[in-house]
Amino acid sequence: MPLKELSEQMLPAVEQEMKDCVAQAQGPGLEEFHHMLAYQMGWEGQGAGQQARGKRLRPLLVLLSNAAAGGNWKLALPAAAAVELVHNFSLIHDDIQDNSDLRRGRPTVWNKWDQAQAINAGDAIFALAHIALMRLAEYASPQIVLRAACLLPQTCLALTQGQYLDLAYEAQGELTVDSYWPMVEGKTASLLAACTQLGALVAEADLEKLEAYRAFGHVLGLAFQARDDLLGIWGDAVTTGKSAHSDLLSGKKSLPVLYALERGGEFGARWKNGDITPEQVPELAALLESEGARAFAEETVARLTDQALAELQAAKPHDPGSQALAELTRQLVNRTG
Amino acid sequence: MPLKELSEQMLPAVEQEMKDCVAQAQGPGLEEFHHMLAYQMGWEGQGAGQQARGKRLRPLLVLLSNAAAGGNWKLALPAAAAVELVHNFSLIHDDIQDNSDLRRGRPTVWNKWDQAQAINAGDAIFALAHIALMRLAEYASPQIVLRAACLLPQTCLALTQGQYLDLAYEAQGELTVDSYWPMVEGKTASLLAACTQLGALVAEADLEKLEAYRAFGHVLGLAFQARDDLLGIWGDAVTTGKSAHSDLLSGKKSLPVLYALERGGEFGARWKNGDITPEQVPELAALLESEGARAFAEETVARLTDQALAELQAAKPHDPGSQALAELTRQLVNRTG
Repeated sequence: MPLKELSEQMLPAVEQEMKDCVAQAQGPGLEEFHHMLAYQMGWEGQGAGQQARGKRLRPLLVLLSNAAAGGNWKLALPAAAAVELVHNFSLIHDDIQDNSDLRRGRPTVWNKWDQAQAINAGDAIFALAHIALMRLAEYASPQIVLRAACLLPQTCLALTQGQYLDLAYEAQGELTVDSYWPMVEGKTASLLAACTQLGALVAEADLEKLEAYRAFGHVLGLAFQARDDLLGIWGDAVTTGKSAHSDLLSGKKSLPVLYALERGGEFGARWKNGDITPEQVPELAALLESEGARAFAEETVARLTDQALAELQAAKPHDPGSQALAELTRQLVNRTG
Repeated sequence: MPLKELSEQMLPAVEQEMKDCVAQAQGPGLEEFHHMLAYQMGWEGQGAGQQARGKRLRPLLVLLSNAAAGGNWKLALPAAAAVELVHNFSLIHDDIQDNSDLRRGRPTVWNKWDQAQAINAGDAIFALAHIALMRLAEYASPQIVLRAACLLPQTCLALTQGQYLDLAYEAQGELTVDSYWPMVEGKTASLLAACTQLGALVAEADLEKLEAYRAFGHVLGLAFQARDDLLGIWGDAVTTGKSAHSDLLSGKKSLPVLYALERGGEFGARWKNGDITPEQVPELAALLESEGARAFAEETVARLTDQALAELQAAKPHDPGSQALAELTRQLVNRTG
């Protein structure tokens, strides 16, 4: 079944599942607290709606993997809600850590309220993710719920390990492409791997299939992040000036930058020389490209995409879900903005 | 069995259980990350040791409640580790939110590293708490593990609700004693209630007993916090100058202060007038006492203590554990520093 058709059924159901869960944060005197969470989720406040919610990629991966592994995706909704809540908890905290004013065109939670309330709102969404997951117990066997309840916090631990590396790298000069992968495995791939694995788990897939789905999500996560890094420097939004932000400006240790730093050419020398001004960005992006960093990252994305699709095939996915998963994979790694 | 004898057996076992769990945060390139967590837990770094670890009250409550409800407390160690990890996650984040430089005489995590890493370290301990809990599955039935896995994140959500109120109250002038209790229920009582309930749950207590243990922990939490508020103004450390910090200086909306604000006397007028200097603190503490706020808070602690002990009796606790729980309750509410 095509991705569009399936996601039109799945996404409203995920939204409802998450809303039911976040409603548990309500109570006397807690209206503003609930509003903060609903704001982050894109349901309330200035700019609420589709764009504020993002792609909801992670719950889609859970539900599509579940359907492709032979499950009834409606029974996997608690897991889908849980991973999207984990994603949003990490966004709130990332935005504080990176001092980001805006997220998807709207003021970030810390910017709209304050840091203290934003840390706490992130913690609340973290707790709600685990609460959401436990709703699986309504239909799934205790064994499956227990395995899911082990997987979710393990994934959150991996997220914090990746985030630690990302923050630590800011102060480190001598980094190579090899230092990139453990960071991305933690920050991006671990949660995408949990999505595909949880979907298959709730579908009662056997161990071999579970591992194939996990590997698919994992490699997809690596490809997704490498693609994101390309877009952060050469994406439409950056090169057309629609976004004021280039990853070259924030000093992010992205895949193309690490490639060039390891190579030790002129880009590396300029990068180490210190702060980059907005005016220098186009020239530096051209320099980076001339040193082969763009081609290297594009080849990496292409190789990882092939590998992700091969892992997906190894999982022997069924329709509905099978076609849509391949479609989603291609969309994610071919996007230009 | 006396508290001292039991806690000498229990506390080293809890420490080991937590260390085994936190060791999962280790990995290549993650030495400093693991060190941050071990520092917060009082195991490593400057000033590591007994005093840096605090009382470990929460795991003791789990294990003593478990023993008193007829369990083998060693099988409840995963739950004991989990609640202490939750407590420590919330301490790391609280210290950022309150801008506190010191905790138990040592630099706080954000102060020693930075805010971004401290938010992340707190998130890691949050995840580890849930990972720790799932070790219950080694001995307990799936039904019991599932109930525990529902209770823990519900408790974390309650913590964030209480914390929201605490932060929101900072900006609110018109507060009464009635606004105090929902905050304390979330911030303090919910986790203590989870401790006693988890202990009884792992001991396979029936629903009636479970509720009695929960109520015991809940009321003990209220008494504990009210006592803490008294100590923050009239405690030995404050009045002898051993601690430079009085809750009157930080503007904390504690029980005695809320009593006086509601009463609307001279203290209330001075409080609303604005910032209080360290020199004014002894005079204001005396004024607060003369308006009956100290007596009111002390009566409240005494009443709640009686109620907590009555709830404990209703749970029909056995030895070992029974005597120690009553002892621990009296210690907590009679402490002077």
